[in-house]
Amino acid sequence: MYAEVAGFYARQMRRLDEGDAEGWAATFTEDGVCRLSTRPEPMRGRAALAAGARTAAAAIPAGERRRHMTGMFEIEARPGGILHVRANTVVYATGAGGEARVHQVCGCTDTLVRGPGGELLVKDRRIDVDGA
Amino acid sequence: MYAEVAGFYARQMRRLDEGDAEGWAATFTEDGVCRLSTRPEPMRGRAALAAGARTAAAAIPAGERRRHMTGMFEIEARPGGILHVRANTVVYATGAGGEARVHQVCGCTDTLVRGPGGELLVKDRRIDVDGA
Amino acid sequence: MYAEVAGFYARQMRRLDEGDAEGWAATFTEDGVCRLSTRPEPMRGRAALAAGARTAAAAIPAGERRRHMTGMFEIEARPGGILHVRANTVVYATGAGGEARVHQVCGCTDTLVRGPGGELLVKDRRIDVDGA
Repeated sequence: MYAEVAGFYARQMRRLDEGDAEGWAATFTEDGVCRLSTRPEPMRGRAALAAGARTAAAAIPAGERRRHMTGMFEIEARPGGILHVRANTVVYATGAGGEARVHQVCGCTDTLVRGPGGELLVKDRRIDVDGA
Repeated sequence: MYAEVAGFYARQMRRLDEGDAEGWAATFTEDGVCRLSTRPEPMRGRAALAAGARTAAAAIPAGERRRHMTGMFEIEARPGGILHVRANTVVYATGAGGEARVHQVCGCTDTLVRGPGGELLVKDRRIDVDGA
Repeated sequence: MYAEVAGFYARQMRRLDEGDAEGWAATFTEDGVCRLSTRPEPMRGRAALAAGARTAAAAIPAGERRRHMTGMFEIEARPGGILHVRANTVVYATGAGGEARVHQVCGCTDTLVRGPGGELLVKDRRIDVDGA
Protein backbone atom coordinates (compact mmCIF):
# COMPACT_ATOMS: atom_id res chain seq x y z
CA MET A 1 0.00 0.00 0.00
CA TYR A 2 2.87 2.37 0.78
CA ALA A 3 4.31 1.82 -2.70
CA GLU A 4 0.95 2.39 -4.35
CA VAL A 5 0.30 5.59 -2.40
CA ALA A 6 3.80 6.99 -2.93
CA GLY A 7 3.56 6.18 -6.66
CA PHE A 8 0.18 7.88 -6.85
CA TYR A 9 1.55 11.13 -5.44
CA ALA A 10 4.60 11.00 -7.70
CA ARG A 11 2.44 10.59 -10.80
CA GLN A 12 -0.08 13.18 -9.70
CA MET A 13 2.44 15.89 -8.81
CA ARG A 14 4.49 15.20 -11.93
CA ARG A 15 1.43 16.01 -14.03
CA LEU A 16 1.29 19.44 -12.38
CA ASP A 17 4.99 19.97 -13.02
CA GLU A 18 4.53 19.04 -16.67
CA GLY A 19 1.61 21.45 -17.07
CA ASP A 20 -0.97 18.71 -17.58
CA ALA A 21 -3.87 20.40 -15.74
CA GLU A 22 -6.51 17.98 -17.07
CA GLY A 23 -4.40 14.94 -16.25
CA TRP A 24 -3.91 16.28 -12.75
CA ALA A 25 -7.63 16.96 -12.27
CA ALA A 26 -8.33 13.40 -13.43
CA THR A 27 -6.54 12.08 -10.32
CA PHE A 28 -9.45 13.46 -8.25
CA THR A 29 -12.94 11.95 -8.14
CA GLU A 30 -15.52 13.65 -10.38
CA ASP A 31 -16.71 15.61 -7.35
CA GLY A 32 -13.25 15.91 -5.79
CA VAL A 33 -12.52 18.89 -3.57
CA CYS A 34 -9.24 20.75 -3.02
CA ARG A 35 -9.08 23.22 -0.13
CA LEU A 36 -6.09 25.54 -0.06
CA SER A 37 -5.31 27.62 3.02
CA THR A 38 -4.41 30.44 0.62
CA ARG A 39 -7.80 30.55 -1.14
CA PRO A 40 -11.11 31.53 0.40
CA GLU A 41 -13.13 29.01 -1.63
CA PRO A 42 -12.34 25.34 -2.28
CA MET A 43 -12.13 24.04 -5.84
CA ARG A 44 -14.91 21.50 -6.43
CA GLY A 45 -15.08 19.06 -9.33
CA ARG A 46 -12.60 18.26 -12.09
CA ALA A 47 -13.43 21.28 -14.29
CA ALA A 48 -12.75 23.68 -11.42
CA LEU A 49 -9.64 21.75 -10.41
CA ALA A 50 -8.21 21.87 -13.94
CA ALA A 51 -9.03 25.59 -14.21
CA GLY A 52 -7.27 26.18 -10.88
CA ALA A 53 -4.19 24.30 -12.06
CA ARG A 54 -4.09 26.28 -15.31
CA THR A 55 -4.40 29.58 -13.42
CA ALA A 56 -1.58 28.56 -11.08
CA ALA A 57 0.60 27.52 -14.04
CA ALA A 58 -0.08 30.83 -15.81
CA ALA A 59 1.16 32.70 -12.73
CA ILE A 60 4.63 31.08 -12.89
CA PRO A 61 7.20 33.64 -14.11
CA ALA A 62 8.47 33.01 -17.65
CA GLY A 63 11.42 30.63 -17.72
CA GLU A 64 10.85 29.37 -14.19
CA ARG A 65 10.56 25.63 -13.64
CA ARG A 66 8.62 24.25 -10.70
CA ARG A 67 9.03 20.78 -9.25
CA HIS A 68 7.14 19.11 -6.39
CA MET A 69 8.56 16.70 -3.87
CA THR A 70 6.00 14.94 -1.68
CA GLY A 71 6.90 12.65 1.18
CA MET A 72 6.48 11.96 4.90
CA PHE A 73 3.43 9.80 4.31
CA GLU A 74 1.26 8.69 7.21
CA ILE A 75 -1.29 6.34 5.70
CA GLU A 76 -4.31 5.11 7.59
CA ALA A 77 -6.80 2.63 6.13
CA ARG A 78 -10.37 3.49 7.14
CA PRO A 79 -13.63 1.59 6.72
CA GLY A 80 -15.09 1.50 3.21
CA GLY A 81 -11.72 1.23 1.46
CA ILE A 82 -10.89 4.84 2.27
CA LEU A 83 -7.29 5.90 2.83
CA HIS A 84 -6.53 8.87 5.01
CA VAL A 85 -3.12 10.27 4.10
CA ARG A 86 -0.98 12.97 5.63
CA ALA A 87 2.01 14.17 3.62
CA ASN A 88 4.37 17.11 3.22
CA THR A 89 5.08 18.75 -0.11
CA VAL A 90 7.92 21.10 -0.98
CA VAL A 91 7.72 23.03 -4.25
CA TYR A 92 11.04 24.07 -5.77
CA ALA A 93 11.52 26.85 -8.32
CA THR A 94 14.46 27.15 -10.69
CA GLY A 95 14.96 30.23 -12.82
CA ALA A 96 16.20 30.24 -16.41
CA GLY A 97 19.69 31.04 -15.14
CA GLY A 98 19.73 27.89 -13.02
CA GLU A 99 19.32 29.49 -9.59
CA ALA A 100 17.16 27.16 -7.49
CA ARG A 101 15.15 27.89 -4.35
CA VAL A 102 12.34 26.64 -2.15
CA HIS A 103 9.14 28.17 -3.43
CA GLN A 104 6.62 26.78 -0.96
CA VAL A 105 6.30 24.25 1.85
CA CYS A 106 2.99 22.70 2.74
CA GLY A 107 1.14 19.93 4.50
CA CYS A 108 -1.47 17.79 2.73
CA THR A 109 -4.37 15.98 4.41
CA ASP A 110 -6.11 13.76 1.87
CA THR A 111 -8.99 11.34 1.66
CA LEU A 112 -8.30 8.81 -1.09
CA VAL A 113 -10.89 6.43 -2.52
CA ARG A 114 -10.94 3.81 -5.29
CA GLY A 115 -12.09 4.70 -8.80
CA PRO A 116 -14.02 2.38 -11.13
CA GLY A 117 -10.85 0.55 -12.17
CA GLY A 118 -9.58 0.23 -8.60
CA GLU A 119 -7.20 3.16 -9.03
CA LEU A 120 -6.62 5.71 -6.27
CA LEU A 121 -8.38 9.07 -6.56
CA VAL A 122 -8.42 12.09 -4.25
CA LYS A 123 -11.89 12.76 -2.87
CA ASP A 124 -10.88 15.55 -0.53
CA ARG A 125 -7.60 17.42 -0.10
CA ARG A 126 -6.65 20.12 2.35
CA ILE A 127 -3.40 21.94 1.70
CA ASP A 128 -1.94 24.03 4.51
CA VAL A 129 0.63 26.35 3.02
CA ASP A 130 3.27 27.36 5.55
CA GLY A 131 3.47 31.10 6.18
CA ALA A 132 0.01 31.80 4.75
CA MET B 1 9.48 -3.00 6.62
CA TYR B 2 10.28 -0.01 4.42
CA ALA B 3 6.71 1.27 4.82
CA GLU B 4 6.82 0.83 8.58
CA VAL B 5 10.15 2.62 8.91
CA ALA B 6 9.17 5.47 6.58
CA GLY B 7 5.86 5.89 8.43
CA PHE B 8 7.69 5.92 11.75
CA TYR B 9 9.93 8.82 10.67
CA ALA B 10 6.97 10.73 9.22
CA ARG B 11 5.03 10.44 12.47
CA GLN B 12 8.03 11.20 14.63
CA MET B 13 9.16 14.29 12.74
CA ARG B 14 5.61 15.60 12.41
CA ARG B 15 5.37 15.63 16.20
CA LEU B 16 8.40 17.93 16.29
CA ASP B 17 6.84 20.19 13.64
CA GLU B 18 3.62 20.36 15.64
CA GLY B 19 5.45 21.28 18.83
CA ASP B 20 4.64 18.02 20.61
CA ALA B 21 7.92 17.63 22.50
CA GLU B 22 6.63 14.87 24.80
CA GLY B 23 5.09 12.93 21.91
CA TRP B 24 8.38 13.17 20.07
CA ALA B 25 10.38 12.00 23.10
CA ALA B 26 7.98 9.06 23.45
CA THR B 27 9.25 7.72 20.09
CA PHE B 28 12.57 6.98 21.82
CA THR B 29 13.15 4.17 24.32
CA GLU B 30 13.04 5.22 27.97
CA ASP B 31 16.85 5.38 27.92
CA GLY B 32 17.06 6.64 24.34
CA VAL B 33 20.02 8.76 23.30
CA CYS B 34 20.22 11.56 20.73
CA ARG B 35 23.68 12.78 19.74
CA LEU B 36 23.81 16.02 17.75
CA SER B 37 27.02 17.11 16.05
CA THR B 38 26.14 20.65 17.16
CA ARG B 39 25.94 19.85 20.89
CA PRO B 40 28.80 18.77 23.11
CA GLU B 41 26.63 16.43 25.22
CA PRO B 42 24.07 13.88 24.03
CA MET B 43 20.50 14.00 25.31
CA ARG B 44 19.79 10.86 27.36
CA GLY B 45 16.33 9.65 28.35
CA ARG B 46 12.87 10.92 27.49
CA ALA B 47 12.82 13.82 29.96
CA ALA B 48 16.06 15.23 28.54
CA LEU B 49 14.87 14.60 24.98
CA ALA B 50 11.59 16.44 25.56
CA ALA B 51 13.45 19.31 27.25
CA GLY B 52 15.80 19.50 24.26
CA ALA B 53 12.89 19.62 21.84
CA ARG B 54 11.19 22.36 23.86
CA THR B 55 14.39 24.41 23.93
CA ALA B 56 14.80 24.02 20.18
CA ALA B 57 11.18 25.02 19.59
CA ALA B 58 11.57 28.09 21.81
CA ALA B 59 14.51 29.22 19.68
CA ILE B 60 12.41 29.39 16.50
CA PRO B 61 11.76 33.04 15.55
CA ALA B 62 8.15 34.18 16.11
CA GLY B 63 5.93 33.46 13.12
CA GLU B 64 8.38 31.02 11.55
CA ARG B 65 7.12 27.55 10.66
CA ARG B 66 9.52 24.61 10.48
CA ARG B 67 8.87 21.41 8.61
CA HIS B 68 11.03 18.27 8.35
CA MET B 69 11.41 16.02 5.34
CA THR B 70 13.22 12.74 5.99
CA GLY B 71 14.12 10.28 3.28
CA MET B 72 16.93 8.32 1.60
CA PHE B 73 16.48 5.39 3.95
CA GLU B 74 19.05 2.60 4.04
CA ILE B 75 17.58 0.00 6.37
CA GLU B 76 19.56 -2.94 7.66
CA ALA B 77 18.06 -5.65 9.88
CA ARG B 78 20.52 -6.76 12.56
CA PRO B 79 20.40 -9.63 15.05
CA GLY B 80 18.03 -9.23 17.97
CA GLY B 81 15.32 -7.45 15.99
CA ILE B 82 17.40 -4.29 15.75
CA LEU B 83 17.12 -2.04 12.72
CA HIS B 84 20.05 0.11 11.69
CA VAL B 85 18.80 3.04 9.63
CA ARG B 86 20.59 5.75 7.72
CA ALA B 87 18.52 8.68 6.49
CA ASN B 88 18.78 12.31 5.41
CA THR B 89 16.64 15.08 6.86
CA VAL B 90 16.07 18.56 5.47
CA VAL B 91 14.44 21.15 7.72
CA TYR B 92 12.56 23.95 5.95
CA ALA B 93 11.66 27.30 7.48
CA THR B 94 8.89 29.57 6.27
CA GLY B 95 8.47 33.08 7.62
CA ALA B 96 5.16 34.76 8.40
CA GLY B 97 5.34 36.51 5.02
CA GLY B 98 5.54 33.18 3.20
CA GLU B 99 9.21 33.27 2.20
CA ALA B 100 10.55 29.72 2.42
CA ARG B 101 14.12 28.46 2.71
CA VAL B 102 16.27 25.51 3.66
CA HIS B 103 17.06 25.84 7.33
CA GLN B 104 19.27 22.79 7.86
CA VAL B 105 20.43 19.62 6.14
CA CYS B 106 21.55 16.61 8.09
CA GLY B 107 22.27 12.91 8.11
CA CYS B 108 20.74 10.54 10.68
CA THR B 109 22.21 7.25 11.84
CA ASP B 110 19.72 5.45 14.04
CA THR B 111 19.39 2.22 15.99
CA LEU B 112 15.72 1.25 16.20
CA VAL B 113 14.31 -1.40 18.51
CA ARG B 114 10.85 -2.76 19.32
CA GLY B 115 8.83 -1.38 22.23
CA PRO B 116 6.53 -3.45 24.46
CA GLY B 117 3.71 -3.29 21.89
CA GLY B 118 5.98 -4.15 18.99
CA GLU B 119 6.22 -0.51 17.89
CA LEU B 120 9.47 1.00 16.65
CA LEU B 121 11.46 3.18 19.03
CA VAL B 122 14.79 4.98 18.64
CA LYS B 123 17.42 3.61 21.00
CA ASP B 124 20.30 5.66 19.64
CA ARG B 125 20.40 8.51 17.15
CA ARG B 126 23.34 10.42 15.75
CA ILE B 127 22.57 13.56 13.78
CA ASP B 128 25.32 15.04 11.65
CA VAL B 129 24.33 18.59 10.79
CA ASP B 130 25.95 19.77 7.56
CA GLY B 131 28.17 22.82 7.95
CA ALA B 132 28.56 22.39 11.69
CA MET C 1 10.11 -3.58 -5.27
CA TYR C 2 9.49 -0.01 -4.13
CA ALA C 3 11.66 -0.59 -1.06
CA GLU C 4 14.44 -2.11 -3.13
CA VAL C 5 14.42 0.73 -5.65
CA ALA C 6 14.24 3.46 -3.00
CA GLY C 7 17.08 1.80 -1.08
CA PHE C 8 19.15 1.55 -4.25
CA TYR C 9 18.90 5.31 -4.88
CA ALA C 10 19.66 6.11 -1.25
CA ARG C 11 22.82 4.01 -1.32
CA GLN C 12 23.89 5.24 -4.73
CA MET C 13 23.44 8.95 -4.00
CA ARG C 14 25.04 8.63 -0.57
CA ARG C 15 28.19 7.35 -2.24
CA LEU C 16 28.32 10.56 -4.27
CA ASP C 17 27.81 12.65 -1.14
CA GLU C 18 30.62 10.77 0.60
CA GLY C 19 32.99 11.33 -2.30
CA ASP C 20 33.15 7.65 -3.26
CA ALA C 21 33.34 8.12 -7.05
CA GLU C 22 34.32 4.50 -7.76
CA GLY C 23 31.60 3.14 -5.50
CA TRP C 24 29.08 5.32 -7.27
CA ALA C 25 30.28 4.23 -10.72
CA ALA C 26 29.96 0.60 -9.58
CA THR C 27 26.18 1.08 -9.27
CA PHE C 28 26.08 1.32 -13.08
CA THR C 29 26.55 -1.59 -15.47
CA GLU C 30 30.03 -1.93 -16.96
CA ASP C 31 28.76 -0.14 -20.08
CA GLY C 32 26.37 2.15 -18.17
CA VAL C 33 25.55 5.55 -19.62
CA CYS C 34 24.75 8.82 -17.85
CA ARG C 35 23.34 11.66 -19.96
CA LEU C 36 23.24 15.08 -18.32
CA SER C 37 21.28 17.92 -19.88
CA THR C 38 24.17 20.19 -18.87
CA ARG C 39 26.87 18.23 -20.74
CA PRO C 40 27.16 17.82 -24.50
CA GLU C 41 28.48 14.26 -24.29
CA PRO C 42 27.18 11.39 -22.17
CA MET C 43 29.51 9.54 -19.80
CA ARG C 44 29.90 5.94 -20.95
CA GLY C 45 31.31 3.11 -18.85
CA ARG C 46 32.43 2.96 -15.24
CA ALA C 47 35.83 4.62 -15.76
CA ALA C 48 34.23 7.64 -17.43
CA LEU C 49 31.48 7.75 -14.79
CA ALA C 50 33.98 7.70 -11.93
CA ALA C 51 36.07 10.38 -13.63
CA GLY C 52 32.93 12.52 -14.07
CA ALA C 53 32.04 12.13 -10.40
CA ARG C 54 35.57 13.07 -9.35
CA THR C 55 35.51 16.16 -11.58
CA ALA C 56 32.14 17.20 -10.14
CA ALA C 57 33.42 16.68 -6.58
CA ALA C 58 36.54 18.74 -7.29
CA ALA C 59 34.34 21.63 -8.43
CA ILE C 60 32.58 21.90 -5.05
CA PRO C 61 33.81 24.99 -3.18
CA ALA C 62 36.04 24.25 -0.18
CA GLY C 63 34.04 23.63 2.99
CA GLU C 64 30.77 23.14 1.16
CA ARG C 65 28.81 19.95 1.85
CA ARG C 66 26.45 18.54 -0.76
CA ARG C 67 23.62 16.15 -0.02
CA HIS C 68 21.17 14.50 -2.44
CA MET C 69 17.53 13.73 -1.78
CA THR C 70 15.85 11.52 -4.38
CA GLY C 71 12.17 10.69 -4.37
CA MET C 72 8.90 10.79 -6.32
CA PHE C 73 9.56 7.35 -7.80
CA GLU C 74 7.40 6.07 -10.64
CA ILE C 75 8.54 2.50 -11.19
CA GLU C 76 7.50 0.44 -14.18
CA ALA C 77 8.50 -3.19 -14.66
CA ARG C 78 9.27 -3.93 -18.31
CA PRO C 79 9.94 -7.22 -20.11
CA GLY C 80 13.32 -8.82 -19.50
CA GLY C 81 13.49 -7.84 -15.85
CA ILE C 82 14.10 -4.19 -16.73
CA LEU C 83 12.85 -1.44 -14.44
CA HIS C 84 12.02 1.95 -15.88
CA VAL C 85 12.20 4.57 -13.12
CA ARG C 86 11.34 8.22 -13.02
CA ALA C 87 12.48 10.21 -10.00
CA ASN C 88 13.26 13.73 -8.82
CA THR C 89 16.48 14.69 -7.12
CA VAL C 90 17.23 17.82 -5.14
CA VAL C 91 20.85 18.60 -4.28
CA TYR C 92 21.43 20.72 -1.19
CA ALA C 93 24.57 22.69 -0.42
CA THR C 94 25.64 23.80 3.03
CA GLY C 95 28.58 26.16 3.52
CA ALA C 96 31.14 25.93 6.28
CA GLY C 97 29.20 28.57 8.22
CA GLY C 98 26.08 26.42 8.21
CA GLU C 99 24.03 28.38 5.66
CA ALA C 100 22.04 25.86 3.60
CA ARG C 101 20.43 26.23 0.18
CA VAL C 102 19.04 24.36 -2.76
CA HIS C 103 21.88 23.81 -5.19
CA GLN C 104 20.10 22.01 -8.01
CA VAL C 105 16.77 20.38 -8.85
CA CYS C 106 16.52 17.69 -11.48
CA GLY C 107 14.51 14.87 -12.95
CA CYS C 108 15.97 11.40 -13.51
CA THR C 109 14.82 8.87 -16.08
CA ASP C 110 16.59 5.55 -15.53
CA THR C 111 16.73 2.08 -16.98
CA LEU C 112 17.71 -0.38 -14.24
CA VAL C 113 18.78 -3.96 -14.85
CA ARG C 114 19.99 -6.85 -12.68
CA GLY C 115 23.69 -7.47 -12.14
CA PRO C 116 25.30 -10.91 -11.79
CA GLY C 117 24.28 -11.18 -8.13
CA GLY C 118 20.74 -10.01 -8.77
CA GLU C 119 21.53 -6.47 -7.58
CA LEU C 120 20.11 -3.41 -9.32
CA LEU C 121 22.39 -1.47 -11.66
CA VAL C 122 21.80 1.60 -13.82
CA LYS C 123 22.13 0.82 -17.50
CA ASP C 124 21.01 4.21 -18.75
CA ARG C 125 20.33 7.46 -16.92
CA ARG C 126 19.10 10.77 -18.23
CA ILE C 127 19.29 13.74 -15.87
CA ASP C 128 17.33 16.84 -16.76
CA VAL C 129 18.68 19.70 -14.68
CA ASP C 130 16.08 22.42 -14.14
CA GLY C 131 17.08 25.80 -15.49
CA ALA C 132 19.75 24.42 -17.80
